[in-house]
Amino acid sequence: MPRQAYVNGRYLPHGQAAVHIEDRGFQFADGVYEVVPVHRGALIDEEPHLDRLERSLGELRIAMPMRRRALQLVARELIRRNDLRDGFIYMQITRGVAPRDHRFPAQASPTLVMTTRRTKPHREALLRDGVAVITVPDIRWRRCDIKSVALLPNVLVKQAAVEAGAYEAWQVDDEGRVTEGSSTNAWIVTGDGTAVTRDASQAILNGITRLSLLNVIRAEGYDFAERPFTVAEAKAAREAFLTSSTSFVMPVTRIDGAAVADGRPGPLTKALRQHYLDYMAGQGAADRQVGG
Amino acid sequence: MPRQAYVNGRYLPHGQAAVHIEDRGFQFADGVYEVVPVHRGALIDEEPHLDRLERSLGELRIAMPMRRRALQLVARELIRRNDLRDGFIYMQITRGVAPRDHRFPAQASPTLVMTTRRTKPHREALLRDGVAVITVPDIRWRRCDIKSVALLPNVLVKQAAVEAGAYEAWQVDDEGRVTEGSSTNAWIVTGDGTAVTRDASQAILNGITRLSLLNVIRAEGYDFAERPFTVAEAKAAREAFLTSSTSFVMPVTRIDGAAVADGRPGPLTKALRQHYLDYMAGQGAADRQVGG
Repeated sequence: MPRQAYVNGRYLPHGQAAVHIEDRGFQFADGVYEVVPVHRGALIDEEPHLDRLERSLGELRIAMPMRRRALQLVARELIRRNDLRDGFIYMQITRGVAPRDHRFPAQASPTLVMTTRRTKPHREALLRDGVAVITVPDIRWRRCDIKSVALLPNVLVKQAAVEAGAYEAWQVDDEGRVTEGSSTNAWIVTGDGTAVTRDASQAILNGITRLSLLNVIRAEGYDFAERPFTVAEAKAAREAFLTSSTSFVMPVTRIDGAAVADGRPGPLTKALRQHYLDYMAGQGAADRQVGG
Repeated sequence: MPRQAYVNGRYLPHGQAAVHIEDRGFQFADGVYEVVPVHRGALIDEEPHLDRLERSLGELRIAMPMRRRALQLVARELIRRNDLRDGFIYMQITRGVAPRDHRFPAQASPTLVMTTRRTKPHREALLRDGVAVITVPDIRWRRCDIKSVALLPNVLVKQAAVEAGAYEAWQVDDEGRVTEGSSTNAWIVTGDGTAVTRDASQAILNGITRLSLLNVIRAEGYDFAERPFTVAEAKAAREAFLTSSTSFVMPVTRIDGAAVADGRPGPLTKALRQHYLDYMAGQGAADRQVGG
């Protein structure tokens, strides 16, 4: 059976899944999205992802296209139809189709699109050697807390990273402080063993993996701080890593071509990655127990 | 015959015109657009619009989906099919369809969409009384010179203007200087009769109507300056107006609720609007003469 996608009430073969050319997602980037990891068939951090989805929609005054519970059933049905075990589900909601006009349309029904994607386990080399990041100026708009599809700046800096042989680009504000990567949050471990990541504000997207890892860190009793750090501080750090719904916890071992500490993934990074994988596995077990 | 749209090689009834859900225009705002006025069946400032289109594409390293001449033929065919006399043609080009990934796809053909729209003459009341603008912080990204479809910030400030009973929102940089409207360029006339509009940079989109009006101003011998102006300067100005491909030259008579000068459209604004209408009429005549 070919992979299916969900578009506005219909399950369709992926290749035929389309939206109208006057969908405001296409013409105005007037929409939001979420990427929810699926681990052993279970949605990971589903409620926080949906909380953030509703918050993003609220900031843009776009209505939920259906009740949360209905949306969760659609997600499960799509996972079932696509026999998805490990990967993620992508959800996008836009303000809908209307004759092109910047103003909110008087009448438009939100567009809801969902797709799934299988993912392979992270390559061993990435985990063994860590990944490289470059640093670039953060030129994005000032509401990065909204998970909108206006991702063009993120696309451009991710491409710059790839062309520099790096995995990610860490964006830097006018004060020389790292905001976040193009699709990941940035972390360092300071000389005294404190895990540091930028505090949530309108300057970053508050990553769900970031939040879950903070919970794990609290539960395990590690030291942490939510505050900005400079590029210089990152380059002098004991360890560095990044987090996202698809990278989980990924060691960063080079910044702008220079090794972080001895250039090997650090012990706290490795411990936190394992804690996070355990956390995901536990969620999957819980989800199966309640018949989710 | 129902209105038609053009999508990737096909002329389709407008209601059936669609793009794939993994079009990068829909998922990443990874695309650009142009709105070209059509006056008495003729494209206005077609070459400058296509120059800017190619520049925007070049900045994003998206290929032209076809040669410029072919694109011009498609535009004319769509105008013919839709029997368009007065209105505009909308062109959007995206990086194309590819499995979702921030990086530029290795293989993807650009998506080309065109639509037309009829427009009515501007309402007499707007021209007689002028329009109101509000001022709002400019929170956009730092490459506003690229005419991308990442228009979410523009949507939000246009909506704020509408809700304040205004026609447009003038965005203001951190130094208190007006950048531009959500879809228009901002102008004032100073006490000594100089027409002032912000200089072209990465902070604004260099409007084609802005450029054509500057040419008209030069040809007619009016005084002008391309430089930033503050909100305070605008509020104390002798006249104010805005320009765009659909508003042409539109008098601004209220800023943040306060009247500009005596609150009536100013004489230079009215003269420039008439010069611009004459300029459009002249282009139409020239276009018909060469059988465009």
